[in-house]
Amino acid sequence: MPEQKDRIESPTARGLDAGALKYTASIAYDRRLYRQDIAGSIAHARMLAKQGIIPGDDAQSIVSGLEDIRDEIERGDFPFHEELEDIHLNIEARLQEKIGEAAGRLHTARSRNDQIATDMRLFVIEACDTAVSAIRDLQIALLDVAEENRNAIMPGYTHLQRAQPVLFAHHLLAYFEMLDRDAGRFGDCRSRADELPLGAGALAGSPYPLDREFVANELGFSRVSRNSIDAVGDRDFVVEFQATAATAMMHLSRLAEEIVLWSSDEFGFVRLPDAFATGSSIMPQKRNPDVAELARGRTGRVYGNLLAILTMLKGLPLAYNRDLQEDKQPLFDTVDTLLPTLQTLAALLPTLEVDSDRMEAVAGGSYTLATDVADYLARKGVPFREAHQAVAQLVRYAEDKGKLLSGLSLVEYRRFSALFDDDVLALDVRSSIAVRDVPGGTAPSRVAEALKLARERLREEP
Amino acid sequence: MPEQKDRIESPTARGLDAGALKYTASIAYDRRLYRQDIAGSIAHARMLAKQGIIPGDDAQSIVSGLEDIRDEIERGDFPFHEELEDIHLNIEARLQEKIGEAAGRLHTARSRNDQIATDMRLFVIEACDTAVSAIRDLQIALLDVAEENRNAIMPGYTHLQRAQPVLFAHHLLAYFEMLDRDAGRFGDCRSRADELPLGAGALAGSPYPLDREFVANELGFSRVSRNSIDAVGDRDFVVEFQATAATAMMHLSRLAEEIVLWSSDEFGFVRLPDAFATGSSIMPQKRNPDVAELARGRTGRVYGNLLAILTMLKGLPLAYNRDLQEDKQPLFDTVDTLLPTLQTLAALLPTLEVDSDRMEAVAGGSYTLATDVADYLARKGVPFREAHQAVAQLVRYAEDKGKLLSGLSLVEYRRFSALFDDDVLALDVRSSIAVRDVPGGTAPSRVAEALKLARERLREEP
Amino acid sequence: MPEQKDRIESPTARGLDAGALKYTASIAYDRRLYRQDIAGSIAHARMLAKQGIIPGDDAQSIVSGLEDIRDEIERGDFPFHEELEDIHLNIEARLQEKIGEAAGRLHTARSRNDQIATDMRLFVIEACDTAVSAIRDLQIALLDVAEENRNAIMPGYTHLQRAQPVLFAHHLLAYFEMLDRDAGRFGDCRSRADELPLGAGALAGSPYPLDREFVANELGFSRVSRNSIDAVGDRDFVVEFQATAATAMMHLSRLAEEIVLWSSDEFGFVRLPDAFATGSSIMPQKRNPDVAELARGRTGRVYGNLLAILTMLKGLPLAYNRDLQEDKQPLFDTVDTLLPTLQTLAALLPTLEVDSDRMEAVAGGSYTLATDVADYLARKGVPFREAHQAVAQLVRYAEDKGKLLSGLSLVEYRRFSALFDDDVLALDVRSSIAVRDVPGGTAPSRVAEALKLARERLREEP
Amino acid sequence: MPEQKDRIESPTARGLDAGALKYTASIAYDRRLYRQDIAGSIAHARMLAKQGIIPGDDAQSIVSGLEDIRDEIERGDFPFHEELEDIHLNIEARLQEKIGEAAGRLHTARSRNDQIATDMRLFVIEACDTAVSAIRDLQIALLDVAEENRNAIMPGYTHLQRAQPVLFAHHLLAYFEMLDRDAGRFGDCRSRADELPLGAGALAGSPYPLDREFVANELGFSRVSRNSIDAVGDRDFVVEFQATAATAMMHLSRLAEEIVLWSSDEFGFVRLPDAFATGSSIMPQKRNPDVAELARGRTGRVYGNLLAILTMLKGLPLAYNRDLQEDKQPLFDTVDTLLPTLQTLAALLPTLEVDSDRMEAVAGGSYTLATDVADYLARKGVPFREAHQAVAQLVRYAEDKGKLLSGLSLVEYRRFSALFDDDVLALDVRSSIAVRDVPGGTAPSRVAEALKLARERLREEP
Repeated sequence: MPEQKDRIESPTARGLDAGALKYTASIAYDRRLYRQDIAGSIAHARMLAKQGIIPGDDAQSIVSGLEDIRDEIERGDFPFHEELEDIHLNIEARLQEKIGEAAGRLHTARSRNDQIATDMRLFVIEACDTAVSAIRDLQIALLDVAEENRNAIMPGYTHLQRAQPVLFAHHLLAYFEMLDRDAGRFGDCRSRADELPLGAGALAGSPYPLDREFVANELGFSRVSRNSIDAVGDRDFVVEFQATAATAMMHLSRLAEEIVLWSSDEFGFVRLPDAFATGSSIMPQKRNPDVAELARGRTGRVYGNLLAILTMLKGLPLAYNRDLQEDKQPLFDTVDTLLPTLQTLAALLPTLEVDSDRMEAVAGGSYTLATDVADYLARKGVPFREAHQAVAQLVRYAEDKGKLLSGLSLVEYRRFSALFDDDVLALDVRSSIAVRDVPGGTAPSRVAEALKLARERLREEP
Repeated sequence: MPEQKDRIESPTARGLDAGALKYTASIAYDRRLYRQDIAGSIAHARMLAKQGIIPGDDAQSIVSGLEDIRDEIERGDFPFHEELEDIHLNIEARLQEKIGEAAGRLHTARSRNDQIATDMRLFVIEACDTAVSAIRDLQIALLDVAEENRNAIMPGYTHLQRAQPVLFAHHLLAYFEMLDRDAGRFGDCRSRADELPLGAGALAGSPYPLDREFVANELGFSRVSRNSIDAVGDRDFVVEFQATAATAMMHLSRLAEEIVLWSSDEFGFVRLPDAFATGSSIMPQKRNPDVAELARGRTGRVYGNLLAILTMLKGLPLAYNRDLQEDKQPLFDTVDTLLPTLQTLAALLPTLEVDSDRMEAVAGGSYTLATDVADYLARKGVPFREAHQAVAQLVRYAEDKGKLLSGLSLVEYRRFSALFDDDVLALDVRSSIAVRDVPGGTAPSRVAEALKLARERLREEP
Repeated sequence: MPEQKDRIESPTARGLDAGALKYTASIAYDRRLYRQDIAGSIAHARMLAKQGIIPGDDAQSIVSGLEDIRDEIERGDFPFHEELEDIHLNIEARLQEKIGEAAGRLHTARSRNDQIATDMRLFVIEACDTAVSAIRDLQIALLDVAEENRNAIMPGYTHLQRAQPVLFAHHLLAYFEMLDRDAGRFGDCRSRADELPLGAGALAGSPYPLDREFVANELGFSRVSRNSIDAVGDRDFVVEFQATAATAMMHLSRLAEEIVLWSSDEFGFVRLPDAFATGSSIMPQKRNPDVAELARGRTGRVYGNLLAILTMLKGLPLAYNRDLQEDKQPLFDTVDTLLPTLQTLAALLPTLEVDSDRMEAVAGGSYTLATDVADYLARKGVPFREAHQAVAQLVRYAEDKGKLLSGLSLVEYRRFSALFDDDVLALDVRSSIAVRDVPGGTAPSRVAEALKLARERLREEP
Repeated sequence: MPEQKDRIESPTARGLDAGALKYTASIAYDRRLYRQDIAGSIAHARMLAKQGIIPGDDAQSIVSGLEDIRDEIERGDFPFHEELEDIHLNIEARLQEKIGEAAGRLHTARSRNDQIATDMRLFVIEACDTAVSAIRDLQIALLDVAEENRNAIMPGYTHLQRAQPVLFAHHLLAYFEMLDRDAGRFGDCRSRADELPLGAGALAGSPYPLDREFVANELGFSRVSRNSIDAVGDRDFVVEFQATAATAMMHLSRLAEEIVLWSSDEFGFVRLPDAFATGSSIMPQKRNPDVAELARGRTGRVYGNLLAILTMLKGLPLAYNRDLQEDKQPLFDTVDTLLPTLQTLAALLPTLEVDSDRMEAVAGGSYTLATDVADYLARKGVPFREAHQAVAQLVRYAEDKGKLLSGLSLVEYRRFSALFDDDVLALDVRSSIAVRDVPGGTAPSRVAEALKLARERLREEP
């Protein structure tokens, strides 16, 4: 390779058919791992020197050569070659150009199998951290909007039918909880990814006196892998990242769906500002919630990426198989989908113009207090099941009369139970909310407490 | 309902079209949750009485009625009715038959929305525990087989090409690690599932002075849910269970693939005993590894179940929607697939007749010591990349001569590097394994240590 | 086997571990294929006799024995045995009990591999026919509702924002088209499934002088398979069925979503009759669209089933592998999901109480005529892009004034373009619909024509 | 827009938040549709002029402006702007720069909704044609290899256990059949995609006197869409393409798996030439089948893409929603995966060095003739089931003696049935193959016929 100035050649793809090379080369996308790859190589070279496996001078030139290369890549000056297949060999070949023979010592005691596993783990660890940070920002946005609208009342829905009045803030806090679980899962994923594979060699370990703990320490890993065959054949950490991201996108798709519904003319709960509404090329009046629709639609891509890695791994014998190369593109795509979705929704939420008057008006319509009326009877000793039945008839009566419950007289109430008294007429949206005063309930004091606690959790949690 | 002796009727499905009832009823499969449902109702009734929400006597009859019903179900005597839709209403109606009016007080301060969420969490918690226990049994089987064959040598593979010799025990320990991560993930899933939703009501909380901590304690939950809307609309714990199970099945599919390969005539590493080999209806000689094939094939079903729940949840507005009913069948199917797969493989593994002679013979064929030869040169100061190149030529030479490396003379070795000396001829399968003496490597002492540590981990881990 | 009266034994699972037998036995679900299996066996036996491969008398007893067995199964009298693994061996063992030694000749010249492939193809062919028939019924329901409401106007939506007025019938016809494509795909799937595998033997063909065309003819297949290895290893027809069903469920999920939206208080376009609305166990007022929600939610299961078969087949070497047994349960589940969904929606649709007054009122709100105003200008020579811009400003002006377009005066119109004339004030919902008079457009005459054509297509199509 | 020389602005994304613009813009990938988009615009402009909707001169400038733009894009000179969102608006804005006001008339009587549906259908139609053509090339490669090795015998496998001898050519023809079905499905997909949506407008049709048939004709569509709402909201053709591609990749993954197996040392049926074998960065001896492994691994990506589109479409209300934008990237990725996989395998297959001696030797090992022996007895009148049982015992006996069937004496045979005669000793691999002389069987004459027929089918089929 070094002698043939005019033609760069891979030590592993020599003589490969041009189509096959194109089909197998990964440099077009694995170049994204250059930082991880160089960091791993620097740590490896330092350890080799420390252990006396390669000369200290060679390690020095390797390290400074790699630092140069990192700069070149970041400046956009690095000459990527498809015929060098992947990021590892591209960097190694360039290192050879820069520092000559010493470059050939870098690959001592390692294989691309443990090298790429190391790169991928570093990438996933960082992706977990970035995802958690973006989740925290969206949680903050939810709390901000909740606090700003802390008195706003909306109809709570089940089956997309108005069910019972709730505080808008309470509704938003449901998403806070979902996101909190997502952050927890990314944390768990990070913990399991946090293990150094380097030193596993091709699959069997290495015949050199390596100091794996030293390398782990240099790269910020908490521990070294316990089994070399598992170390090179495992991609659980990618699967777990994909599953966690898929769950998070599912949550975001639910939030997005609600933004789409709320901003429809039919709901009219929120209005999108110009900065987050898009127009139509033909209909001049349109204010479309495209950001929310795309957040919802992109969920499919992330689900697909989860499936892709699971399918790829199914039935693979140990240890490394080239199929594993296919872990990358779906992972990158998920990262590039999840993070902007979190960020864009965090930017959008505070700009929503909430129409709390309309929400509250609607919250009291449609017999949403019927449960309160049933509970009223139950508290007077009627078994709940009977109370429920009586109120169902009461609602039917009101519907036939074209009245809301608030439009009925006590006389009319009493047609369905003699236990009704004047105070039943005092039931309203605010009283309905106020009485749901249990841990996790929508009563204003509970929600205020939940908001406070949520802020504290964010301060304490990583 | 109680008056109409001759016709049982649901309080919620009254007047429903027969086809629609059939389409929506879930009793055919959610009856499986009867234990969880009854346990939840008993805890709820006790709490209602303790808080003075229903009379103590009523609570007593409810509890003993429910215990009777549990016995009936377990005896197979319970009269399930499709027109009562689900397990909740079937039990409630039967309770009414047994204890009369008091039964109507049981549904005070709860909704089927928080009730089913409670049932499902109890089910998933138990499923996590059972899965971990079955995983531990398979891990033990792996350790047993590994210890019994602790000196057996096999060729390690990458790309299904023989790569380097490894200990068979080392190979099996790779699966031990995979399963260990699975157990960890089930543990994490359990922790997040471990949260009582009861008390969330339909979605807004409850107007009664509930003691949710008491109920949590009765049912073994560590904490109560923090947000009532999230509590009834969340199925993350099912998604997480499915994703964890899918990952575990993926691991089992890899093990199954290897059993299929190893028991083929071509590999011949193991022989299946009659107890785990099936015949052919036409070919009298066949000994098919059907158990392994089905373990591999059933992976698809579990992947499908994960996808089903993710798809179902995508874009659902809060809080409860009937779509959520579709969380059950895929979950049950996954539990019914994963557990028998773990158990059957744990039973099969120790019965494998390992042909260690053949494995070792094969391990030394096919130039699997080439890396050792390259490392030999590297240790004499040749940059690894050059050493790799020299040995590649050496291998090609040997192939052309139709010889193995062990068949070459020192003179022939020296055609490729003057640094070769007599001791290169001493390289063999055992020396190759012995020198891979790094943490996680295949050297016998490392593997012995790993086996010991693995036993300890099993003792300590839950 | 025949001698041992006290214990039934499989010729292929003899000596199998009890757990392994349980794990591998499929009789619990493949019994569903009994009709196909018996029909296949009868045709096979007749052909064997016709070709002189087995005695005619034996064939006679086989045929009448099998017919008896079919009756037994249909009467519920058949003694299924798990230890006989599958439907094939259960039937064969029972036949032996009934007719003795001659039963042993039935399995001449066939294998379970070609036998199960035949059963499955017969099942899929029938499932395609049933699906097409259920699709046709739903298409008819759509046409009935469309015709009954042929003058009803609704707002057409894009991005769930009101876009332009359309006929309700036109909207329903969109689903007619989707379903029509589904029927076409089921037809294509059927054509490809319509090929007899029997005669392929285990994988290599058969050494007997079979008349495969005779068997195909008996069973209603149009042709015989061309390659025996493909014949036993292929499950494309199941994949295609699953993909087609998934697409159909996707369409139904969109219709279901609209039923959920339309029946919400916010939209109020339709009201569900009692026969298709379910109540709440706690909220007495609820009328939930559970049927539609479940149709939507079950889409996930069908997607999962598609994925399951694709995953199972991935990377399987030829020819038959036991993994293929996993084609059945997901297929049965899809059939059992798709057909009732089609049927239940066909029953539900005609019962919807359409509130056409409300729909029409809403159709004219929210500036849905803005495109008509832009087209008005374009027809007067303004480039459409400029017209679009002018009307966008007009709408913004009206919004600020809190007016609809119909509330603006000509003077106000003219502030945005001098080309506006009196006739712009005449634009309304009906004129907007009437002018969209292109093939496929919503103009009443086009829709009437489309309805008529749709009826004709149903009459002509299979 | 035209006045503001210094800043290009979208008519629909004006004022959009920078992050939201970045999140929603699709120009980074939909630029790939430029050819389709320009062809559609040219046809549309011509039709508008023909119908007198826009001036003929304007149409002329539009057409020549668009042709210039196409050249610019192909030369790499086109100034793409993210703030112009998508390919439609990028081209329209550039057209305005080039031809001024007339450009504003191009968007008369159309919307981006019907425009993108047209572009996508044109793309899918072309992709179907390209896929079929690549499939045909791979089929030809299979036939070439089959013919070149027409006498080669290999062991046929079921359960990856040697089952019966077959011709290698017969085995390859199984893939020919699979690919043939794939081509058929792509053809069906093409037929359903072949329908012009343009003229559907935003969703309701167009108020202009369009000649849709003219446009269809110009663009090569066979018919126009029948319902405007369906036309803009439908992506079935993408789903169908993805499902068809997923099935094709599944087939290729099976072929790839076999190449991996066959080229292993254990099988040794084929040797990969240097042009298709890759080395290891650490193990100098490796010849890895990376191309096949990647073909197998990439199947996961294509499955994921199918899932992505199905998930995205699930539960979407009509008509167009922005979610639909997510149809593109997975489609492009599938095309970019499937086609190179077909091409690379077509290039690889003919280079395989088939070791037919080894295959034939193996084909006769392992009791693969046991079925022939059972059939021998059956032909002498023993019911097959009994014959099967006798030969199973014979095989067991031979195994115990460590002999193959060919190593047994007639005396030994007779211990298991008195019906054995001298001629049983003549059974061998070639006779076993020769007697499987049924349509679709592996007898040489049948395979020769199948090869001939396959060539003819390729000539006749599209």
